[in-house]
Amino acid sequence: MPVNLEAPRRDALPVVAGVEIGTACAGIRKTGRRDVLVLRLAPGARAAGVFTQNRFCAAPVVVCREHLASSGASVRALVVNTGCANAGTGEQGLADARASCEALATRLGIAADAVLPFSTGVILEHLPMQRLLAGIDAAVDALGGSDWLDAAEAIMTTDTVPKAASRRIELGGQTVTVTGIAKGAGMIRPDMATMLGFVATDAAVPAALLSRWAREAADASFNRITVDGDTSTNDSFVLVATGASSVAIDGQAGRAADSAAAQALREAIVCVARELAQAIVRDGEGATKFISVHVEGARDDGEAAAVAFTVAHSPLVKTAFFASDPNLGRILAAVGRAGVADLDVDRVDLYLDDVHVATRGGRHPQYREEDGQRVMKKAEIEVRIVLGRGSASTTVWTCDLSHDYVSINADYRS
Amino acid sequence: MPVNLEAPRRDALPVVAGVEIGTACAGIRKTGRRDVLVLRLAPGARAAGVFTQNRFCAAPVVVCREHLASSGASVRALVVNTGCANAGTGEQGLADARASCEALATRLGIAADAVLPFSTGVILEHLPMQRLLAGIDAAVDALGGSDWLDAAEAIMTTDTVPKAASRRIELGGQTVTVTGIAKGAGMIRPDMATMLGFVATDAAVPAALLSRWAREAADASFNRITVDGDTSTNDSFVLVATGASSVAIDGQAGRAADSAAAQALREAIVCVARELAQAIVRDGEGATKFISVHVEGARDDGEAAAVAFTVAHSPLVKTAFFASDPNLGRILAAVGRAGVADLDVDRVDLYLDDVHVATRGGRHPQYREEDGQRVMKKAEIEVRIVLGRGSASTTVWTCDLSHDYVSINADYRS
Repeated sequence: MPVNLEAPRRDALPVVAGVEIGTACAGIRKTGRRDVLVLRLAPGARAAGVFTQNRFCAAPVVVCREHLASSGASVRALVVNTGCANAGTGEQGLADARASCEALATRLGIAADAVLPFSTGVILEHLPMQRLLAGIDAAVDALGGSDWLDAAEAIMTTDTVPKAASRRIELGGQTVTVTGIAKGAGMIRPDMATMLGFVATDAAVPAALLSRWAREAADASFNRITVDGDTSTNDSFVLVATGASSVAIDGQAGRAADSAAAQALREAIVCVARELAQAIVRDGEGATKFISVHVEGARDDGEAAAVAFTVAHSPLVKTAFFASDPNLGRILAAVGRAGVADLDVDRVDLYLDDVHVATRGGRHPQYREEDGQRVMKKAEIEVRIVLGRGSASTTVWTCDLSHDYVSINADYRS
Repeated sequence: MPVNLEAPRRDALPVVAGVEIGTACAGIRKTGRRDVLVLRLAPGARAAGVFTQNRFCAAPVVVCREHLASSGASVRALVVNTGCANAGTGEQGLADARASCEALATRLGIAADAVLPFSTGVILEHLPMQRLLAGIDAAVDALGGSDWLDAAEAIMTTDTVPKAASRRIELGGQTVTVTGIAKGAGMIRPDMATMLGFVATDAAVPAALLSRWAREAADASFNRITVDGDTSTNDSFVLVATGASSVAIDGQAGRAADSAAAQALREAIVCVARELAQAIVRDGEGATKFISVHVEGARDDGEAAAVAFTVAHSPLVKTAFFASDPNLGRILAAVGRAGVADLDVDRVDLYLDDVHVATRGGRHPQYREEDGQRVMKKAEIEVRIVLGRGSASTTVWTCDLSHDYVSINADYRS
């Protein structure tokens, strides 16, 4: 059961002008479920992406990077399949990813390098090209509408809830829409972005600024979540600006970024990305709790993130949350092994929501077990760690480690 | 159920001359189980230790370091309690650890800094000093014998099997014994040594050499295992040389280390330490499989260890082993995120025992799923990863991640 997460309402996901959506059931791995998504973008659309740092990155990730470079970010279509990651597939995998782009480009009458391909699913297996190409054809036939909920459903794997989010803002009297989707529940510790996130706006945004916002939005959202610490081979986050509305963020990246309109649009994009990223954690494999790990008083951002992720990855911390057991020494043990070589534990404070648990290297004199117990029983909990070394801070979102995580991952392929 | 691990036979654990053993049931956390161990060492005994790098290190670890320094490694007694780690306990924790040493020293008529204290159990709670001091008294009353199986049982926490190992070697016509014990099943990713390992020999060894061997033995054994990636606050590995046999490894550390006798004794110590370390993995919380992750062709030792530990820590790899599911792309995904920034995946080979799974960035042409399945069903499996970059190699031992791991850690305190 996901933690405080329901499928978004269809009417809460407004159309992004310049984006058409088509889906199909191609039977890539299982029959009778949507597993192919095509997004057609209006002429003039631009896209920017950030991708996994995993060295065993998937073939579609390699092709996405190539196409973004050769097309100068002028992207006209995205194609996504689930059921097979096309990772660990060598030369054949690259050929398959390119063939998918060519087939879609031919159908749409666009250049092959204006197509970005994405895959997610099992690693080390080849794409079933015949079924995939038939699915792409069917998805193209379905183009025309703009049902973002269908799109979110078409990219689910072990997700139990489709993930989509939207914001509308007014810029100079015009409405601009930002709508996005994401998938992911396991193998989640994005190193640049998470396993498939797509956010589109109908504003026009210069390519350099779009690229910068893609990085910044990923850094404030997908790069701050973890379910199991496993960085995927297929992580991709793509930000699209179709320019199909009448709003344009003009000028050079540097100056344009400072305008009030640009700030408002950037903020809307970050909000959508963060809501999607948190949805992935809420739907994390086996999750029963949504945990925010906030670290402050760090010397720099890297130190804050190292401590936060060490706590967020600790199987012992995560099983204690699953059990609602305030076995909070496990959090201190994780802080202590986070690689901060000169950490003075006497200056560390630990809070669980409003409860002051530890101070001066030990238990807070007023801390009572029943206070810790009260917080641990909640479905959403903030762990706050104050290092007392500086002014840097960060927040990482994670979930607990339950029996269902083991069941899901022991049974995934069988 | 531990993996191919049974309690050692009492008669397979020979006496180490110069070591007396006493245990007691002090009721530290639970009643009716041995939870205090005292080892009395003969005059002239030396000890060397390596300890956790966790910044939240336990009070007894601090006191051990102080006493080894101030006594010049002349150690006459070790005292160990389970049920409470005395970590995250601030000044009171240090005072309690020192008081334990003083009480034992008074009873034995030795200096307080000739005592090394060790604790293991729950973090963030204070030692119940009245019960502990009574337990120390009872353990001293029980001194005289040398039952290493009793000693191994007295330091168990979530262990299901007592862990002890021994080797006897002949040096210059004399028999030298090396016997040791260890405990640990969870919070296992030693950063210098594991949560309580003690190895004693009756040879005499110069202090500097003993210290070097303690580091080298830990590095070849306890520092090469992981259950859940969580480095404990209490990890301690202590090597004792009583000198009570007639064999002495004489001379300066540098020259003595080169003698045939020194090499033979060092090898026996490493064997005992490695057997104990592997026993911890075999008894890892919830373990059903014993996995050796061997990395070769690395550019240097650090790179080999980073890849091996990333694979050994991956929850997705570990759940696949639990399921006996050859979902081997998960291993490649872990190799790819191990931080080797310029890894050429086309040069990476992956073997599962004798089965060649992956090559040139993808599945090996001759690999068949049923071959992977055959190996995955075994209780002991070697994962061999060839990076094709250099000549460094290492091996790390780990276990799978099962439902029982979650149960054990969700229920540990309750």
